Amino acid sequence: MYKRLNICTALDYVKEHIKFLEKEDLICEEISDGNLNQVFRIKSKEDKHKSVILKQSLPTLRIDETMKLCLERIDIENKYLRDQGNLVPKFLPKVYHYDGNMYLIIMEDFNEHIILRKELISGKKYEHLGKGIGEFLAKTTFCNSDLYLDPLKKKEKVKMYINPELCRITEELVFVNPYYNCPKNKINPWLEPVVQELINDKRLQSEVSELREEFMTKAQSLIHGDLHTGSILINDMELKIIDGEFAFYGPIGFDIGAFWANIILSYESQNYHRSNLEERREMEGYLLNVIRDMWNVFQREFINLWERYVSCPIMMNNIYMEKYILSIMQSSIGYAACKIIRRIYGLAPVIDITLIEEKEREDVQKKSINLARKLIMKRKELKHIDEFIDLIEERN
Amino acid sequence: MYKRLNICTALDYVKEHIKFLEKEDLICEEISDGNLNQVFRIKSKEDKHKSVILKQSLPTLRIDETMKLCLERIDIENKYLRDQGNLVPKFLPKVYHYDGNMYLIIMEDFNEHIILRKELISGKKYEHLGKGIGEFLAKTTFCNSDLYLDPLKKKEKVKMYINPELCRITEELVFVNPYYNCPKNKINPWLEPVVQELINDKRLQSEVSELREEFMTKAQSLIHGDLHTGSILINDMELKIIDGEFAFYGPIGFDIGAFWANIILSYESQNYHRSNLEERREMEGYLLNVIRDMWNVFQREFINLWERYVSCPIMMNNIYMEKYILSIMQSSIGYAACKIIRRIYGLAPVIDITLIEEKEREDVQKKSINLARKLIMKRKELKHIDEFIDLIEERN
Repeated sequence: MYKRLNICTALDYVKEHIKFLEKEDLICEEISDGNLNQVFRIKSKEDKHKSVILKQSLPTLRIDETMKLCLERIDIENKYLRDQGNLVPKFLPKVYHYDGNMYLIIMEDFNEHIILRKELISGKKYEHLGKGIGEFLAKTTFCNSDLYLDPLKKKEKVKMYINPELCRITEELVFVNPYYNCPKNKINPWLEPVVQELINDKRLQSEVSELREEFMTKAQSLIHGDLHTGSILINDMELKIIDGEFAFYGPIGFDIGAFWANIILSYESQNYHRSNLEERREMEGYLLNVIRDMWNVFQREFINLWERYVSCPIMMNNIYMEKYILSIMQSSIGYAACKIIRRIYGLAPVIDITLIEEKEREDVQKKSINLARKLIMKRKELKHIDEFIDLIEERN
Repeated sequence: MYKRLNICTALDYVKEHIKFLEKEDLICEEISDGNLNQVFRIKSKEDKHKSVILKQSLPTLRIDETMKLCLERIDIENKYLRDQGNLVPKFLPKVYHYDGNMYLIIMEDFNEHIILRKELISGKKYEHLGKGIGEFLAKTTFCNSDLYLDPLKKKEKVKMYINPELCRITEELVFVNPYYNCPKNKINPWLEPVVQELINDKRLQSEVSELREEFMTKAQSLIHGDLHTGSILINDMELKIIDGEFAFYGPIGFDIGAFWANIILSYESQNYHRSNLEERREMEGYLLNVIRDMWNVFQREFINLWERYVSCPIMMNNIYMEKYILSIMQSSIGYAACKIIRRIYGLAPVIDITLIEEKEREDVQKKSINLARKLIMKRKELKHIDEFIDLIEERN
C-alpha cells in the first residue's frame, strides 16, 4: 500500500483528499529539510492562503541511508499533534488528514511563519518566544503527567506512545556517540584534543550515563523529543510547534534542555553572525532572556496547574512541589549540555555553527564544549535559573 | 466464557487439561489465602507427588469487594512466570497450562515447600534464603533492564507489562492511604497520636511522594511488584517465587524493599514469637544476616553481570556502576520503609504483627513506624548495607 510520493503524486493525493483544495488549480513544491521525512507544500495558484503541508515517512534516515526506520513513526506524530492540539490548539498545526497506509499526514501550512533557527541567525528578536515555549511546555507536560491524569489513563498513554526506534536515535546520537571514538562523529581537526579529553573524562561519562538512563526509563510525561529551534515556527504574533515523531513518555527536562541547547548555540555564535557590536550584545542579552522567560513562565504555569489540579493528599505539599520543579530544572540543564555537545561534533550539526567560517568556528566550538561540560558536572548544584545563566555568561 | 470455578469444576478442568493427571483419581482443596484470586490444589489420591496448583483471577478484591479488578492480570502473571522461568528456572514454578478465556493458570505445585512468612514466625532459619533472593533479583532485574536488553526489545517488554490496575492498588495502599486520614486505614487506638504526627510531617510526605513518583514513572526493569514473604515458598534446599500478577517495569529497589520490609517486620516481632531469649537473639541475628546476604549477593551478581554483558562504551565505567547500584540500595531502603508503614496500619496487615497480643503489639508497631520514618528521611545518606542494618538495630 505504501508508495513514496513525488511532487506530482503528492499534488494529486492532496487534490483527492482535501475538500477545500479539490477545485483549486494547485502547485506543489518539495520543502523537506529534516533528516527523516519528505515534506511538500501544496497550494492554490490563485489564493496563497489556501495551502497545506503533506509530510510522509521515509523508510531510511535521509542523512544516513544505512539507518532504517519504521514508517509507523508518522502515527506517533499524528497522535501527538492531535493530543497536544486538544490541550493548547494555538501552538500546533491542525491535522486535516492522516493516512496510516501511506504513512502521511496533511496538515495546516504556516506560510507566514519562519523557522526559528533561521530567524535567530539573522538577528530577529521575538518578545513572545520564551514565554510561549514556557506556556506550551508547562501545560502539555503537566496535563500528560501523573500530576493530572488518572493513573489508568496515563499508563494507557505511555503504552500508546512507546517509540523504540526514534528513541534509539537519540539514545545513540545524543548520549553515546559523542563520548567514545565513534566513526559517526565529525570532529574538526582542531577539536581533536578537546574531544579526546572529554572522552577520557570518566566522571563526565558517568553523569551522561545517568541522564541517558533517565531518558530511557523515566515516563514522566508526554514530550516532543526533538524540540530544537528547527521544530519551532514563529512570526510576530505566535509560535507553532511542528514535528512530533520523536514524541514519547520521557523526562520533562529533555524538551526544555533541547530548547535551551539551541538557544545557547545561537548565543555562542552571535559573535560571528553580527558585525555590529551593539546589535550583537543586544541579541545575546535577548537570548539569555529567552531562557529566563521560558523558565519563569514554565515554572509559574506549572505551579498554577499544580495548585489548581493536584488533588492527591500527599502531593499537596510545597516542599515536594518545589523539589519536583527544581529537579526538572537541573535535569533540563543536563540535557541542554548533552544536546550542545552532540551538535558540535555529532552526526547532525546545526547551521548556527556550520555557517561560521572555519577559523572562527574553532573558538565557538571549544567554548560551547567547555560550557557543556561544566553544566553537566554542576547541574545539581544550581538552585535558580539565574545561576544557570551566570554560567553561560561566564564562559570566557 | 469466564466462569468462576469451585472445588468440583476446578477438579474437572484439571482432569481435562493436564495430561499427567487425566487417569488419576483426584482430590481438590481450596487453598486461597491472598487478596486477589482463588487457588486450588488438585492432586492424585494415590501418588502425592502428582499434583498441580490452579489459580484463577476473581473480578473483585477478596478483602474489599467494592474494588473491581481486571481479570487480565493473570495474563501478566503467566508472562512473568514464563519470562523469569526462562532466565532462572530454579526459582519459579513451571506453567503447565494457561487459559486466557477462563483467566487461569495451572502450574507446578510445591507441596514440600512452606510459605516463608510462616516459617519465620515459627523460628525456622534457612541459610540459603538471603543468597537465593539476592541471586534471583540480580539476574532477573539485570537481564530485563537496559543494561542487558536491546533497547527495542526492552521497550516492547515495557509495553507488554503495563499493568495499570494492579499498580494502582500499590500506588494507593502503599504510597497514599497511610499518609492522610484515609477511611481504609486500620489504626489501633493506641497508634492514633503516632499516626497523626506522621500524617502531619510534610517533609516525610515529600520523600514518600518522591518514592511514589519513581514507582509510577521509572521503567528500570521487570519487577515482581509484590515480593513479600508470602510470595516466597521455601524448604531446606531451595526457594520459589510465586504470584507474579503485580509484575511491571518499575524501579528495581521496589522488590528489594518489599523483601526487606517483611524481614524487618519479622525481626521486630521476634520478641513476641519466641519466649526463649537465646533463640530470639539468634533469630534476630539471622534475620539481619538475611538482609546483608541478600544485598551482598545481589550486588556481587549484579557487578558480575555488568562486567560481563554491558557493552555500551559510556557504561563501562565503574563510577557509574557504583552510583547505579548505590542508588538501588537507597531506593530499596525507602521502599522497605513505605512497605513497613503500610503493613502496620494499612488495609492489609501481616500476621507477624496481628498474631501478637494487643498489649505487646503497641510496642512493636511504634518501633516499626519510628524506624520506617527514620529510614525514609535518611536513606540517601546511607552508603553501605551495614549502615542500614545499624539503623535497624539501633531502634530502641
